[in-house]
Amino acid sequence: MAEYSIGVDLGGTNLRAAAIDRAGKVLAKVSGGTKLSAGRDAVVSDIVACIVKLREQCGAGGLAGVGIGVPGFIIMDKGIVTASPNLPGFENFPMRDEIEAQLRAPVILENDANAAALGESWHGAGRDVDDLVLLTLGTGIGGGVIIGGKVLHGFVGMAGELGHMTVVPGGNPCACGNNGCLEKHASATAVTAMAKMMGLGADLTSEDVWRLAVAGEDKAQVCWEMMGTALGRGLANLVNVFNFPLYLLSGGMLPAWDFFAPAMFAEVRLRSFVFRNTPTRIEQAILGNEAGLYGAACLPLQSTGTG
Amino acid sequence: MAEYSIGVDLGGTNLRAAAIDRAGKVLAKVSGGTKLSAGRDAVVSDIVACIVKLREQCGAGGLAGVGIGVPGFIIMDKGIVTASPNLPGFENFPMRDEIEAQLRAPVILENDANAAALGESWHGAGRDVDDLVLLTLGTGIGGGVIIGGKVLHGFVGMAGELGHMTVVPGGNPCACGNNGCLEKHASATAVTAMAKMMGLGADLTSEDVWRLAVAGEDKAQVCWEMMGTALGRGLANLVNVFNFPLYLLSGGMLPAWDFFAPAMFAEVRLRSFVFRNTPTRIEQAILGNEAGLYGAACLPLQSTGTG
Repeated sequence: MAEYSIGVDLGGTNLRAAAIDRAGKVLAKVSGGTKLSAGRDAVVSDIVACIVKLREQCGAGGLAGVGIGVPGFIIMDKGIVTASPNLPGFENFPMRDEIEAQLRAPVILENDANAAALGESWHGAGRDVDDLVLLTLGTGIGGGVIIGGKVLHGFVGMAGELGHMTVVPGGNPCACGNNGCLEKHASATAVTAMAKMMGLGADLTSEDVWRLAVAGEDKAQVCWEMMGTALGRGLANLVNVFNFPLYLLSGGMLPAWDFFAPAMFAEVRLRSFVFRNTPTRIEQAILGNEAGLYGAACLPLQSTGTG
Repeated sequence: MAEYSIGVDLGGTNLRAAAIDRAGKVLAKVSGGTKLSAGRDAVVSDIVACIVKLREQCGAGGLAGVGIGVPGFIIMDKGIVTASPNLPGFENFPMRDEIEAQLRAPVILENDANAAALGESWHGAGRDVDDLVLLTLGTGIGGGVIIGGKVLHGFVGMAGELGHMTVVPGGNPCACGNNGCLEKHASATAVTAMAKMMGLGADLTSEDVWRLAVAGEDKAQVCWEMMGTALGRGLANLVNVFNFPLYLLSGGMLPAWDFFAPAMFAEVRLRSFVFRNTPTRIEQAILGNEAGLYGAACLPLQSTGTG
């Protein structure tokens, strides 16, 4: 029986899981909603039910383990979720042990952005390199750093807080306590705030702002240029720090690439002589929403073999 | 015979070398000037002579190898110095092979700031951790990142260009082409430039500015606060990116610690929730000028055993 693992992507809205083999082939998949209103135990039961279903489909004998991507901070060696703004009730919950007890199979938790970075590294846009950085551009900006094919965790699992690098000292205030964080100047939220400030409308989504840019609206295009400049500033720092071959961007704002990328590249070129002197690539991730599933599935395979 | 290695610190002014054993004990030491005016071949001959002298003193049989810290960019797998502003004539020089041929012993080259970081990690202020970042505060600001006890090189050996992170967008122009680089706002050069701007004098060294601060001169104290703020901004980004347990500062400006550290810590606290929520340490390195020697000596031991 071919060895496989099960990856789970636990989001604040959606719960998805897939059985994936070492070659990256998806053997089976399930998805549903995350029923937060039913409480933590109900969500955990749903997770376990998804995994059990996939294990029955694919055969218990070949299961190397289970990886779960969680939108929050995780104490890796204890498998505890310490804080998770999008999963109320999960704070300080020993999620790994609870699910392992119900499943009788080894479980590894990982931060969702780290899992996405690992997924792209394993079978996505970064499969040809060992080292990469992924920025997930969404409501906020998440980050994952892969070194030698593995997630960089730092000493308490808080590495890769790339959305909170300061790119505009004295800039927009952030819930983290800082001002001018990358995610306050280059996330979807930042783009909609800029659009409002420019008088384009108070209730626009970043997708609306993209469509306005496509339609030729100057102010919308300026919003994307400002977003690209802020993003480029953060990327320039990362290139100077890591000198990795690849930096990936993912998330719902990628369709606006043509509107933000020129300003982004101009800023990186200005601010990073490392970028100017090396064949560093800044590219779009390719696995989309699947990246987290792949990364979660990769975790148990990494810990048992060649990953 | 006890195993040892020889570390060489090749600076633009001084050439130093030491034989050091695995326990970090300095068995023998030599030092002299770097005779740049005599040309590259003469400098190489001096390096070889230093190493041969130490090898004769300590016994050829126990020599694990030679590590050389060089102030420049190095293509690690080829042992070539690609650019070195402080060592004219060494550009694109296959230094490793040349010295190996003359010595008949294995040689490893390393960037000098990386070597200093490794030295502090091996037997200095970072000996109790596996992961750390070192910033060398001098005329410029160099950086070294140690992950799992080893130097982070990036894909062409340019990782750790921490002095060129942008901390003041629109700030002072840097020779790297950027403006507002950390090293243009927190190096010794930056402090003397601030002192001049504040009307303290045109020809002050950073040590002079420190002495003025000690003497109670307000403007000098403000210079150190501005330097500390810029440094804190760079450190906050590094803490958010790496979540390492330890960040070290070294170099000739450490005596002014009491004048810049309060502003530095205030800025890191403001700009990094990772710092506020973890027992992250920002401390002074302890090996001083010896750090590079230790790090260079560590290199051959790492590649042959437990380091």
